[in-house]
Amino acid sequence: MEIKQPYLLFLGDAADALAAKTSIGVAQWKPEVCIGQLRLAGCKADAKLPDMSPDEAAAKGAKTMIVGTTNRGGIISPAWMAALLGALDAGLDLASGMHNKLSDIPEVAARAKARGRQLHDVRHPTRDFPIANGVKRKGKRLLTVGTDCSIGKMYTTLALEREMHKRGLKATFRATGQTGILIAGAGTSIDAVVSDFVAGCVETMSPDNHPDHWDLIEGQGSLFHASYAGVTLALIHGAQPDALVMCHEPGRPHMRGLPGYKLPDIQECITVNVEHARLTNSRAKCVGISLNTSRMSEKAGLSAIKRMEDRVGLPCVDPSRTGVGRLVDKLRKFK
Amino acid sequence: MEIKQPYLLFLGDAADALAAKTSIGVAQWKPEVCIGQLRLAGCKADAKLPDMSPDEAAAKGAKTMIVGTTNRGGIISPAWMAALLGALDAGLDLASGMHNKLSDIPEVAARAKARGRQLHDVRHPTRDFPIANGVKRKGKRLLTVGTDCSIGKMYTTLALEREMHKRGLKATFRATGQTGILIAGAGTSIDAVVSDFVAGCVETMSPDNHPDHWDLIEGQGSLFHASYAGVTLALIHGAQPDALVMCHEPGRPHMRGLPGYKLPDIQECITVNVEHARLTNSRAKCVGISLNTSRMSEKAGLSAIKRMEDRVGLPCVDPSRTGVGRLVDKLRKFK
Repeated sequence: MEIKQPYLLFLGDAADALAAKTSIGVAQWKPEVCIGQLRLAGCKADAKLPDMSPDEAAAKGAKTMIVGTTNRGGIISPAWMAALLGALDAGLDLASGMHNKLSDIPEVAARAKARGRQLHDVRHPTRDFPIANGVKRKGKRLLTVGTDCSIGKMYTTLALEREMHKRGLKATFRATGQTGILIAGAGTSIDAVVSDFVAGCVETMSPDNHPDHWDLIEGQGSLFHASYAGVTLALIHGAQPDALVMCHEPGRPHMRGLPGYKLPDIQECITVNVEHARLTNSRAKCVGISLNTSRMSEKAGLSAIKRMEDRVGLPCVDPSRTGVGRLVDKLRKFK
Repeated sequence: MEIKQPYLLFLGDAADALAAKTSIGVAQWKPEVCIGQLRLAGCKADAKLPDMSPDEAAAKGAKTMIVGTTNRGGIISPAWMAALLGALDAGLDLASGMHNKLSDIPEVAARAKARGRQLHDVRHPTRDFPIANGVKRKGKRLLTVGTDCSIGKMYTTLALEREMHKRGLKATFRATGQTGILIAGAGTSIDAVVSDFVAGCVETMSPDNHPDHWDLIEGQGSLFHASYAGVTLALIHGAQPDALVMCHEPGRPHMRGLPGYKLPDIQECITVNVEHARLTNSRAKCVGISLNTSRMSEKAGLSAIKRMEDRVGLPCVDPSRTGVGRLVDKLRKFK
């Protein structure tokens, strides 16, 4: 995959910031390659970049428009068609993390061909994977897990990599979702892998490594999410994590996309995740909690972090409020 | 996908009965739709049906030849080509559960087109599925689960359907693997579905039904199998089972395909399966155990069944030794 930089980020008609989390994530973790954002009427998300048209972005040097927004089901909306074609006309490639492929939309495929532009469908694996063999690999692994989807797993994993690199520690972010792939420039969208091969895919993306190297594997979904828990369990087994970090956002009324489904108790969620992780790595343990307190005031957020830490008895951080230093302290001493 | 009946069963050059287990399974569970078998020189398997050519089968009314045999790697053998083309020439459709697709073999695809015949590659889903919504459906559902793969889940599920129909109860076998699909004539191989959509696929294949109707859903894999547990968890959540039946074979040295991985304790396995099932159906419970004692003597088998029943405190059967009547007794009174 060679996605040409810099980027124009397409936020479409995102209903909220979560819906545009791919574009917003790229803007946050790779600001140096983001020139602007393109939003349609009704867009409720903001990547905090200058709004501009594909032509304006191209004039400023943009090479690719990132289709970094979503809707339920993760498919490319007909309402976006004019913008996608406009980007191709302006001379930009397109890179999408959606379930349906840009290259399967006849009008988009024809226009790309006519303009000599490339279409990158990063959610779609371009290779085959083996069935997982469950054989223990060398090196150390951390996996972020969560009480729910879209709760801060990728953010936490990227923050851990940044902090570990700052301290000179060996660590590699392993992307398992489309935003992570667009940020890292490599990885596989495991939710697009045929179910029989998901655990094997994760084994493949996190191979043997130095004994003091940490693979920091981006979590997906939640064992308690009725739509996606199977993906999460295959990821846990394939990752063979030594360390788990539990991600949570206080105050969610229900599981994302599932009205009527309450979030699990965090202590129960930790226990169940660790028990499943121990199938493929008997020393798996939870090293801490990453709390997403972005909707709280500073005071309420810090108070929530303190309460969680007292309750669960593990270090609790909010990557964007406190940093993840206390988790990295534990990883340094990890036995 | 509906596979036209009746069938001619292709056993090919199967090296042993195990290699032809799909054809033999169809003959065993749907004898009324099996007209004959086609065996090549050297075939060591026998479905106990009249041997006949595709032309003879077609003359007796056969509509489809089932490619229900396998070889190393599960791919379609070049040695079968003449027989496959002969079946198409005789006016039969082809249905295969192999990894590689009939429709990807140019000679087979061309001949099918020329003769106006259909090719069914039942391991490969032919439609898209929604993301699971977790909404409770009407009607009752039973799911077979297991301590391991290939341990008797399909067999148990089919035996339950047969016994329930014998008693005039409303029940439908829902196939989730290739052999089950060829037996039922419909279904989806869930291990070939993209991981994000497995739970949604299972919701789709078991829709709203009458309050006294049971969907009997064929289980796959095991929550304790390091290669496939994700498939199993998605199946559990999508099935929303009221009743679980735990399948087990005593004496297995390790999990299938995973030397070094021991089988789980059956009581722990029941507990974990029920806990996960309760995410999407709070009344889920395990109603009994199906023990595969086919490698034991009659006396040892009956003794193992008795010991298991005493230990777990649930009715225990071996479908081929004792029948599944005691499980159906429980389903009749299910509340």
